[in-house]
Formats: sequence, structure tokens, C-alpha cells
Amino acid sequence: MPELRKDPILGRWVIIAWERGVRPSDFQHVEEQRGSADTCPFCPGNEGKTPPEVYAIRNGDTKPDTSGWNIRVVPNKFPALRIEGEMGRRGIGMYDMMNGVGAHEVIIETTDHTKTLGDLPIDQVALVMNTYQVRLRDLHNDTRFRYVLIFKNEGQRAGASLSHSHSQLIATPVTPKRVKEELQGAQAHYMAKERCIFCDIIGQEVDSGARIVYDNGKFIAFCPYASRFPFEIWLMPKQHSCDFEALAKGDIPALADALHVVLDKLAKALNRPQYNYVLHTSPNRYPRRAHWATIEDDYHWHIEIMPRLTRIAGFEWGTGFYINPTPPEDAAKYLREVE
Amino acid sequence: MPELRKDPILGRWVIIAWERGVRPSDFQHVEEQRGSADTCPFCPGNEGKTPPEVYAIRNGDTKPDTSGWNIRVVPNKFPALRIEGEMGRRGIGMYDMMNGVGAHEVIIETTDHTKTLGDLPIDQVALVMNTYQVRLRDLHNDTRFRYVLIFKNEGQRAGASLSHSHSQLIATPVTPKRVKEELQGAQAHYMAKERCIFCDIIGQEVDSGARIVYDNGKFIAFCPYASRFPFEIWLMPKQHSCDFEALAKGDIPALADALHVVLDKLAKALNRPQYNYVLHTSPNRYPRRAHWATIEDDYHWHIEIMPRLTRIAGFEWGTGFYINPTPPEDAAKYLREVE
Repeated sequence: MPELRKDPILGRWVIIAWERGVRPSDFQHVEEQRGSADTCPFCPGNEGKTPPEVYAIRNGDTKPDTSGWNIRVVPNKFPALRIEGEMGRRGIGMYDMMNGVGAHEVIIETTDHTKTLGDLPIDQVALVMNTYQVRLRDLHNDTRFRYVLIFKNEGQRAGASLSHSHSQLIATPVTPKRVKEELQGAQAHYMAKERCIFCDIIGQEVDSGARIVYDNGKFIAFCPYASRFPFEIWLMPKQHSCDFEALAKGDIPALADALHVVLDKLAKALNRPQYNYVLHTSPNRYPRRAHWATIEDDYHWHIEIMPRLTRIAGFEWGTGFYINPTPPEDAAKYLREVE
Repeated sequence: MPELRKDPILGRWVIIAWERGVRPSDFQHVEEQRGSADTCPFCPGNEGKTPPEVYAIRNGDTKPDTSGWNIRVVPNKFPALRIEGEMGRRGIGMYDMMNGVGAHEVIIETTDHTKTLGDLPIDQVALVMNTYQVRLRDLHNDTRFRYVLIFKNEGQRAGASLSHSHSQLIATPVTPKRVKEELQGAQAHYMAKERCIFCDIIGQEVDSGARIVYDNGKFIAFCPYASRFPFEIWLMPKQHSCDFEALAKGDIPALADALHVVLDKLAKALNRPQYNYVLHTSPNRYPRRAHWATIEDDYHWHIEIMPRLTRIAGFEWGTGFYINPTPPEDAAKYLREVE
């Protein structure tokens, strides 16, 4: 019998189609086509092909926009939002609009054209996480922005237009709907229980054990109870914190370890699947709003990793209703058993 | 300058990236691979390859599950939900679940393996719409179901696993999240204005004209102000009605005309794009809930058509934030100009 499961934060129902019981080998493998390094704007030596860098981790005294970097952050050449300008909120009849003010940056994670994030050593993953923090801190000083989205599209099927490993950042003058819903869900739980819902979830996952993929003491990775997608994984700090930015430097290696292990397990279990991940962290708290006053208490940052294994039927967009052929308990078991 | 536009019903912000200004010819064409008719379970002569039909429009006195049909409705061979059983709502610690009780049916729209819905004559499209009504009426008698979803995946990229033209129906014991949000958004507008928000939108679209694709007097098709996708189209009855089921028989030809014209314009403008559509109609009103008491006033059924032209970046799922490179005014203009 298939099951309907409810996401406790968002109230979203998911169909877990037990009987389909899809194993890793049942998913069609899509070979990633990695373009040539010669023309790749993210490769060393091609720095002139991107807009000037906004941040980089560089060796010695190398100059900006030359080679000699290890991680490099540049504005997106075709930005969805523009950094200059006022917000100009206004109405057109019954409709609301504002100018597309914001930031759209690319975080180039490595100089190696051939590697994915999961292939990189843990130290390099740690530098990527550090870079996320640096950019978040900088953009949170701009009071026009309400939220800074950090996400990764690995592979063409996941929406990447360039294959050289990179993440993206979009700073927006509005809080995205899904983020707001998550904040509201977490707040409602806190109002009822005076406990963080994410901490409660971690507690139940640790007790059950059935959906855990990896736990290094500081970070836990598990397939969520109401997974939308096969092999979906959520990665969370075990210690309560609403804000990724506030993660102590000393804890970054443990985060990098957990992310590295999880991506490596996915790569081995599913033959290097294409995937997306999204960092879910606290919105910009300037101006601090009355109903976000307790966000430090009720919200808990985390990373949601979504392998792109199945075709997405359009009705999922139309309805917010997902069908997942792989129970998260099965997915977690496969992933735990990967060396 | 890009624009941020807010959907007035859901409160969802969309980035309209004016400067990218993508024209129909800029989208990559994906050739649909139509499998062989010999082995197609939806072709006449192969009726034995599907579960027994639940409904059909048949010629003369032909027998069920033989050829001689014009439209045929069968249970999905690999259903996401099962028709037999109790709902068994229960908790597992903090999580909620229920049995996967529901219906999952396939509406085979034509005997012709090679045609898409947009290729069919208007009379045949009208029969498909009629069939939707028949199945909705039947399933609304089952008090276990809260919602009946009708949707169409045209092409593999849109999630179809069989190429023979068909729609799907899923009856669920819960109201999908996105449907609930739409009902709540419409209700909030009605509370404030005592007017249907969809009727208000139609009014403003008719006044402006910039986003209208087609209007046959009874039905209007337009690219919505905050379109998520290039060439997204909403098709609505101009006369207020919350319920597709209640559409009078005499109005079905006008609906079929509008749907036929819109699909034909999309096919011509965009070289037969793959697409999804979702029928948005009133949920099952048994048991009638206090806060749905005015659904007849505040809700308005419609069809949302989403061509699959762009790769979907994963962060759109993670955030509910969409980037659309084609302003709906441009899309509507292209479509109006198609003969």
C-alpha cells in the first residue's frame, strides 16, 4: 500500500509509492557533458571572460582577475537581478511590482575543470563553505536585501549551463515564498511547543535511526520522512542555530566532512547523479520584524540536497503534490551501506 | 532593468528578466520521440494491455475493453494511489501519515497514436472535456476524496512516459498544498473586496489587452502578469464559476475552441513544445467546511498551461522563486500574431 506522508514543517503531503521500490540501479543514468576547458570562463587563465571578481582566495600576492586563485567569486555575466538602483515598489492596477534590484554571483569552487564538489578534498569543501559565509556577511550589510539564496546546480539536468563546478548566490529584496513558509511553519511549532521543530526532527531521527545517512557528531544527514524526491537528503547542524553565517570557524571542517561524505555516497550509490542543493538559512534580520523576533529560537539552518533522478511531472508544480517512488528508509539504507 | 512581479493570488514573486528578452526561436527544440504504435497500450487493438476500462465513449454496441472506442478511461497500471481501503490517519512520533488511498486514472484522448491534443479537431477536444466532467462527477461521490487533480504531461520532458496523447487524474484524500494556498489567496481577496480575484484579474487583463492571447467571448486566455515560465498561459471562463464540473454542456464547445486555439498557437510559435497543463477547480465540497462556505463566490476554475522550454534550476523548488526570461507581454504578442 502506498503511503501519504506529511512534511511537519510545511504541511506538504507526499505520496511514498512503496510498491515501486526503486533501487539505485533502476534510475536512468544521464552522462554529464563537460564542455572544453579552453573556452571555460571559470578556468584559470580565462579570468578576463568573467566580470571582475568580488572576492577570491588567492595564493601569495597574485593580483585580482589573474590566475593564482583557489576560490573565486564573480558577478553572474547574465544576472537575473542588478546591484544598482532603488527598489521602486509600485502598483499597476491590482498588481504589485518592484525593480529587479539584487545581487547574482557565481562561486567558482575549484580551478580543476574536471572535478565536481564531491570529488574535492575536504579542505577545499571547507573553503567553499567559508566563502559562502564571507559573501553572506558582506551582502547582509546591504539593507535593501531581505534574503540571500545560496544554491548549487550540478549538471545540465539540474539547470547548470556551465559544467565547471560552481555555486550561485542571489540576494533578493523580498523573502522567497518557500522560505517564508518554512519560517512560519517553524514559528507555529515553537508557539505550540516552545521547541525548535528541526531539533525535534533530529531527536526523532536519531531515536529511529532508519533514515540516517551519516552522523559525525556535529552534523547529521538524513533522508527526510516526507522526502519529495528519491534520495533527497537534509544536512543539519546538531546544535541549534538559525544562521549559517554564525557557524564557528572551528565547526566548518565537520560541515565539510559531512557534505563531502554525503556527496561521495550519492556519487557511488547512484553513479554520479546530477543534483541541486539549497542552503536554507535565516533571512536578513534588518529591519528586524516583530514576528521574526524569535527566529533565533525557532529556526534552524540546513542544506537540502535533491538528486535529479526522476522526470518531474508538471502537475507537481501545479499542485505542490509529489510522488516519490523510493521510500526514504530504503534510500538511507543504501547510502549508509556505501563505503 | 529586470522586474520583480508578485502573483496577486499566491503572493509569489517572480523575476521577469526583460533584458534577456528571449524570442520563440531562442528556445532549444526537443524532438519528441513517439514510441511504436504496435506495442502502445493506448492504441486500438491493445485494450488488453491496460486494466479494464472505467469509462469510454464507444461507437454503437461495441463491448468494453475492445476496439470501437473514441475516448477511453482506464486505471493507471502503476497507480500512485490505490482505490481500495480505509484512510487510516495516524501519527508516528511527531510525523503524520495515512494510507495511500485514492484513484489514479488515464484518459486516452484519441485512437490516433500520432496526434497530440492540439492536433485534434475541436469536437474531439470537447469530448475530452466532457470526459473530465464525467470522471469528476463520479469520483466526487466517494466521500474519502478531498480533491481530484486533472493534468496533462505532453512529451517526455514534461514527464510523460507514454507518447500516445493522454491526460491523468489523481483523486486524493487530502487537498494539495498549492490548491489550498490558491483557495486561501482567493478567499482573502474576497474578504477584503467582496469580489472574486480571478474576475478582477480578467477585468484588468481585458482593460490592458497586453497579455491577452485569445478571447472567444466565453473564454479568455492570457499570459499571467507574474508568469513563472516563458509562454505560460491561463485559460478561464469569463463568467464566474468555481467548479469545472458545473460548466454547462452548451459551453463546452467554446472551451474546446479556446483550448484548441491556444495549443495550436503554442505549437506554431514554438515548434510543437512539450508542455504540462493542470485543471484548477474547486475541491470536493463533502464535507462542506466552514471556511469553504463561500467557495462558490471566491474561487474561479481555470486551466494553467506551462510549456517546458527552459531547464528548471533546482533552487526554484527550494525557494518557490522563479526567473522567467520572457516577459508575458512579449509572449502574448507573439502568440496573438500566430495565425
